[in-house]
Amino acid sequence: MSLLVTGSIAIDTVKTPYGVSENCLGGSAVYFSMAASFFSPVRLLGVIGSDCPFDLAEVFADRSVDLTGLEVRKQSKTFRWKGTYNDNMNDRRTDCLELNVLAEAPPSVPAAYKDSKFVFLANTTPALQLELLEQIDEPVFAAADTMNCWIESHLDDLKRLLGKIDCLIINEEETRMLAAEHNLIKSTEAILDIGPSVVIIKKGESGSVMCNVDGERFILPGFPVTEVKDPTGAGDSFAGALMGYLAQRARTDFGSLKQAIAYGTVVASFAIADFSLAGLTSINKTDIDSRFETLRKLTSF
Amino acid sequence: MSLLVTGSIAIDTVKTPYGVSENCLGGSAVYFSMAASFFSPVRLLGVIGSDCPFDLAEVFADRSVDLTGLEVRKQSKTFRWKGTYNDNMNDRRTDCLELNVLAEAPPSVPAAYKDSKFVFLANTTPALQLELLEQIDEPVFAAADTMNCWIESHLDDLKRLLGKIDCLIINEEETRMLAAEHNLIKSTEAILDIGPSVVIIKKGESGSVMCNVDGERFILPGFPVTEVKDPTGAGDSFAGALMGYLAQRARTDFGSLKQAIAYGTVVASFAIADFSLAGLTSINKTDIDSRFETLRKLTSF
Repeated sequence: MSLLVTGSIAIDTVKTPYGVSENCLGGSAVYFSMAASFFSPVRLLGVIGSDCPFDLAEVFADRSVDLTGLEVRKQSKTFRWKGTYNDNMNDRRTDCLELNVLAEAPPSVPAAYKDSKFVFLANTTPALQLELLEQIDEPVFAAADTMNCWIESHLDDLKRLLGKIDCLIINEEETRMLAAEHNLIKSTEAILDIGPSVVIIKKGESGSVMCNVDGERFILPGFPVTEVKDPTGAGDSFAGALMGYLAQRARTDFGSLKQAIAYGTVVASFAIADFSLAGLTSINKTDIDSRFETLRKLTSF
Repeated sequence: MSLLVTGSIAIDTVKTPYGVSENCLGGSAVYFSMAASFFSPVRLLGVIGSDCPFDLAEVFADRSVDLTGLEVRKQSKTFRWKGTYNDNMNDRRTDCLELNVLAEAPPSVPAAYKDSKFVFLANTTPALQLELLEQIDEPVFAAADTMNCWIESHLDDLKRLLGKIDCLIINEEETRMLAAEHNLIKSTEAILDIGPSVVIIKKGESGSVMCNVDGERFILPGFPVTEVKDPTGAGDSFAGALMGYLAQRARTDFGSLKQAIAYGTVVASFAIADFSLAGLTSINKTDIDSRFETLRKLTSF
């Protein structure tokens, strides 16, 4: 089934203990599309300025990524992010953020995308996520990400969004913040009460937890990696593989969601092994399937 | 096969956001024995003073815990610990520590214990752990715990101990500290190079990781609990169930170790649900087996 992602396209400068990657391609929609494209065609919705040095058609060559929804604004500049990861690679500092085109009017959903069935709304203001979602005719499974600043300052909009989506994909601290509860399972249940039928919590190297409104639960550790060069895009790669797998299967039952999370975990573990998109562009579906089986073996008893 | 534990017997006062438990029974050997006794007979080696208000024979009534190695020193006082857990229940502060009898000469291993095959050396100075281990004739599987202060100030002794034991059971931060390496898998491999054939890393609510010298790995998330009243003794309960299961099976192959870790995870999740030993004394083997199957279902995909 069709899969749409709305999110950012970025020019990133990333510094980690393993090196610096200057002015490389990044952004939630880019990581998501690259990860999802291993499983399913993807429709990308995003905006760049005329300064963008990357030819996205070339970046996604040989991958089924539809760029009908890529808008290039001649008078605008592309979103830029500069960040530094500390020694443990878990915490990062934003050194510079230039919203540029992201501070302007959002893109609208092209007519050809309106029949999308699987929709991922990458992190942005909840009001904009809602506005984009409302342009889709009949989504089958809509998922969204969010972040601490929207929980702090746009909570009403976020709650309205939660009433409209099927699945929230969110990190551990944000879960606790949104539910105002420390216990992770209790927080997840509190979020399910607001609206979505599934909540998926990203715990970084400690894996993920999924709960649904029927009381089903799934917990999966992170893949034990020894190579971590650049964690940027891990969460969006996780979401991309997850949604790509669901769209490919055209199913959203709990068993399929569990497998989707395992694929998300595997693809994210490849994404962080190198800078920018190199961790994803250097692998193929066989590598993913092989690590998926390794993950199953690593976790079964 | 016979299972011996050497460790502390404590009078604890524990404060958590859920209440206060004053002068309750605690200590590594006590939590370990209680947890292990669901699976296997246990031989306890430890010392108390004449002030100890607990009758351990009564505490372990109807459980196969051999107290031949319990020494009561008339002129001494029992080890006491007072601690407070913060709101997230992950961090704790020691308010008061009275080593008392633990600062005196250690107990010696009774003749009847010398043929023990499975041995757990709970946290104490590595030199004492070594001294106790050397009194066992022919251990089949010796495991030990340690802590940050011995890594910092008794590293040579600790390395000698690592050369003598089969398995180190250690927490995440201590693993990184001991190996001087942030990546958890690389740190574990560095510790395997020092001596033990198996390293098991306790990650608290994020579960555990096991690696062995043959390159086999196992990762298991924590059991998703909603009730956490007192995390004291979680690590020793984990080790107790793990070693108890291995002693019962009389096996230490990787498959048995995986199941042992799953039992450790389950028993620890019961231990933290109530103050002192109440989380363990209120359950039976059927509760443990049932949660073991739930854990398997929760983690399989």
